[in-house]
Amino acid sequence: MPTKAYDELRTLARDAALMGSVEALVSWDQETYMPPAAADFRAEQSAALAGITHQKRTNPRIGELLSQCEADRTLTADEASPAARNLREMRRLYDKKTKLPTTLVSELAKVGSQAQEAWKVARADNDFPAFAPWLTKMLDLSRQKAECYGVPPGGEIYDALLDDYEPGGRAAEIETIFTPLGDRLSALIKGLLDKGKAPSDAPLHCKIDPAKQNQFGNFVIAALGFDPKAGRLDVTTHPFCSGIAPGDTRLTTRYRDEKFTDALYGTMHECGHGLYEQGLPKTDHFGEPLGDAVSLGIHESQSRMWENFVGRSREFWVWALPHAQKTMGSGLEKFAVDDLFRATNLVQRSFIRVEADEATYNLHVMLRFGIERALLRRDLAVKDIPAVWNERFEKLLGVKVPDDRRGCLQDVHWSFGLIGYFPTYTLGNLYAAQFWEKINADIPDLPAQMSKGQFGALLAWLRTNIHEHGQRYRAGELCQRITGKSLSADPLLRHLERKLRPVYGL
Amino acid sequence: MPTKAYDELRTLARDAALMGSVEALVSWDQETYMPPAAADFRAEQSAALAGITHQKRTNPRIGELLSQCEADRTLTADEASPAARNLREMRRLYDKKTKLPTTLVSELAKVGSQAQEAWKVARADNDFPAFAPWLTKMLDLSRQKAECYGVPPGGEIYDALLDDYEPGGRAAEIETIFTPLGDRLSALIKGLLDKGKAPSDAPLHCKIDPAKQNQFGNFVIAALGFDPKAGRLDVTTHPFCSGIAPGDTRLTTRYRDEKFTDALYGTMHECGHGLYEQGLPKTDHFGEPLGDAVSLGIHESQSRMWENFVGRSREFWVWALPHAQKTMGSGLEKFAVDDLFRATNLVQRSFIRVEADEATYNLHVMLRFGIERALLRRDLAVKDIPAVWNERFEKLLGVKVPDDRRGCLQDVHWSFGLIGYFPTYTLGNLYAAQFWEKINADIPDLPAQMSKGQFGALLAWLRTNIHEHGQRYRAGELCQRITGKSLSADPLLRHLERKLRPVYGL
Repeated sequence: MPTKAYDELRTLARDAALMGSVEALVSWDQETYMPPAAADFRAEQSAALAGITHQKRTNPRIGELLSQCEADRTLTADEASPAARNLREMRRLYDKKTKLPTTLVSELAKVGSQAQEAWKVARADNDFPAFAPWLTKMLDLSRQKAECYGVPPGGEIYDALLDDYEPGGRAAEIETIFTPLGDRLSALIKGLLDKGKAPSDAPLHCKIDPAKQNQFGNFVIAALGFDPKAGRLDVTTHPFCSGIAPGDTRLTTRYRDEKFTDALYGTMHECGHGLYEQGLPKTDHFGEPLGDAVSLGIHESQSRMWENFVGRSREFWVWALPHAQKTMGSGLEKFAVDDLFRATNLVQRSFIRVEADEATYNLHVMLRFGIERALLRRDLAVKDIPAVWNERFEKLLGVKVPDDRRGCLQDVHWSFGLIGYFPTYTLGNLYAAQFWEKINADIPDLPAQMSKGQFGALLAWLRTNIHEHGQRYRAGELCQRITGKSLSADPLLRHLERKLRPVYGL
Repeated sequence: MPTKAYDELRTLARDAALMGSVEALVSWDQETYMPPAAADFRAEQSAALAGITHQKRTNPRIGELLSQCEADRTLTADEASPAARNLREMRRLYDKKTKLPTTLVSELAKVGSQAQEAWKVARADNDFPAFAPWLTKMLDLSRQKAECYGVPPGGEIYDALLDDYEPGGRAAEIETIFTPLGDRLSALIKGLLDKGKAPSDAPLHCKIDPAKQNQFGNFVIAALGFDPKAGRLDVTTHPFCSGIAPGDTRLTTRYRDEKFTDALYGTMHECGHGLYEQGLPKTDHFGEPLGDAVSLGIHESQSRMWENFVGRSREFWVWALPHAQKTMGSGLEKFAVDDLFRATNLVQRSFIRVEADEATYNLHVMLRFGIERALLRRDLAVKDIPAVWNERFEKLLGVKVPDDRRGCLQDVHWSFGLIGYFPTYTLGNLYAAQFWEKINADIPDLPAQMSKGQFGALLAWLRTNIHEHGQRYRAGELCQRITGKSLSADPLLRHLERKLRPVYGL
């Protein structure tokens, strides 16, 4: 039963999100089309917008209205009702936001914008020392943020930041899943590489014009269900998806002449995020928790599902290869479905996370998780990052990092303050695997559908079970509701073993 | 001598302009990359931003500080000093802005954004009745705006709106220049077309790939002096230039396979605006009158100078043709400099203003000036626009308008409330011609320089005499300072006669 206070609360949330959407657009522009000389002024624009959005999100009137609504039994008697859940998550957000002073929010946005530009240059120049002072500033600001939030009882400083991305998440709990996952993955990888026969990567050496790759990428995402009238695909240095506003979901990717699958899977990955954004009930609930994604882990489960469980399946290539050959040519014509399926499931000890295969990928994430956790605890100094990175990388993956560009400088995240964010990537893989088993039980002929390029039933399942609920259920509850179990590493390991061992002839 | 109050005033002006720059970026995005489904929400974003900017520009503290500064003799004793002129124009802007209620400003932005989308559809569908209700709304809102400003003494409602674009301008005065200009232009055009021999337009029939046109366009604007690190060139329906922020000046153009010079001159035109924007002292004075353009007439004098006085000169083609042939090929190789010079100076009774030649162009402008003036006076109803447009067009240019797409629906301006704006296009031609005579007196070998692709001395002259002053001098004073005379139609007519009669063998 809607009330006047509840309506007003929703309006204030929407107004704040309206300015947030402008911030998102300005940030998208910075990554895609902004001329370089505009960078300094852009930092001021971003800071000003962040300040306005923050003021709107911390408007004391929201606090008053929240208290009124929470006391209203017509809204909260049923704890699992949409309104009650909307209020619970609004309260969480408001309490968090009001703990942050406007000056800190503006500073994070401004320094983050400058640090991002510094990162771009440092990465191009392979010059970690040039980036180090910016990372130190962002770490200091992030620690200040964590102190404002407060460390949760029994937790550590990392948890205060992690909660922004994975509500209620704990570093120690993640460690208890990551450690055995890492051990079993290492064993799997070692087994494949030592005893198996690596498939040929010949199809990936076809040189393909970026314009043709772009055309094929747009064809694929349209087939997956991405609405091109409500979104677009552009080029950037570090691919991302931004659900800017209702009717406005933007994907980015990057192209190289070789290894066209890097751009293809990058595009499918961001498309997975984009399908979630397009499926959220923004028409009715834009700016409210009910119109927003559950967590980054759940968001990542969507991107990884489309990238890996769909895109790296044999069925996908049954459908996609003839189209790829027709659109891109360039030597692809001489390869068969199994050539593509096997080449895109090659397991390699490689350097770049976003180009890593499904199995080693999680080891990259664990490395970053360990380093950022140590940085926050002050167990590690910024200047020592390259040495520690390179040492741990070699231990985890068995190869020497050739330079920082392909090492600790490769990711944009830390430069603009995304600290406590990395573990959500592996959580996404775990959720995706666990959902995927249930989806295949619910849609028994899904493989046959995928072989024909039919992704409608899969997307409808995701819409019904995940997208349409917004934040009605937290990640753990959603996982329990859908799969009947709490999150486990088993489905992901089952999936990887079942797919990769045959690829390696084991 | 700067004072504390003056410093605070400048800071407030800059803060307001910061939000204005976000508005400009959001509007650029709407015209270039925004997905269509985002249009409704974009209208809300624009309205919210316009509201915030308006509040900042009408902050009562600005009024207090203005009064303090105006009373401070150290700032205002020398009436022509930069500070005194900065204060004069800040006062003018503040007084105008405070007369407009925030609700009206938001409404103009919101309805304008929606009307612009309606115009795009109506123009594509050649459906004026679908656009009429939106134009009626925008006219009503514009009349409300004019009433808030108040009609200047002895003036008319049109002047209240014109003043936004051409400070102090009067429709009646413009009419006294336009009427004889129109008569003499009509006589010139009739003479050329009746008695002269039209040059061949064969070079314009070469079919050229838009990507190659884009490459050549970027080459040309770089040669003119446009800094690509502080700006960019994109594609849109209606070309424009937006001086979004310091270091961020964006040009747009549109390409067709045929008549590559439409895109080329569109690009050079917007580049002329862009060079002015890049030359304004924004590092020191962003957001202040001293960092802003004099008027739209002066702005247009820059765009038309680069488009017509440079781009349609024989000297330009001496330099540009070999490059055009090398970059674009496509049959251009068989043409000589004179073929291009003559083809791009063809005088034609054509329908589209932005594609019109230098001579007939001004007749298009006069048509719109007459119609919008009559609309504001309520001498003309919106529903009657197509009939009146077509009748007057035939009288002025001697040809029948085939459809509204090529008639009254061709321009975007009215859809978002740019009413009282059109005459500045012809004022721009007049100023450009008058400046051009002085420039050639100051730089006697300019034609020789242009033949070698050397535009540095010309740009330096414009920087020194026009760009660097911002709004220190109003248009009339600037014209007087530079040329020693008030604005006259004679230089433009001299220029056109001297160039066009030989092209037509007269």
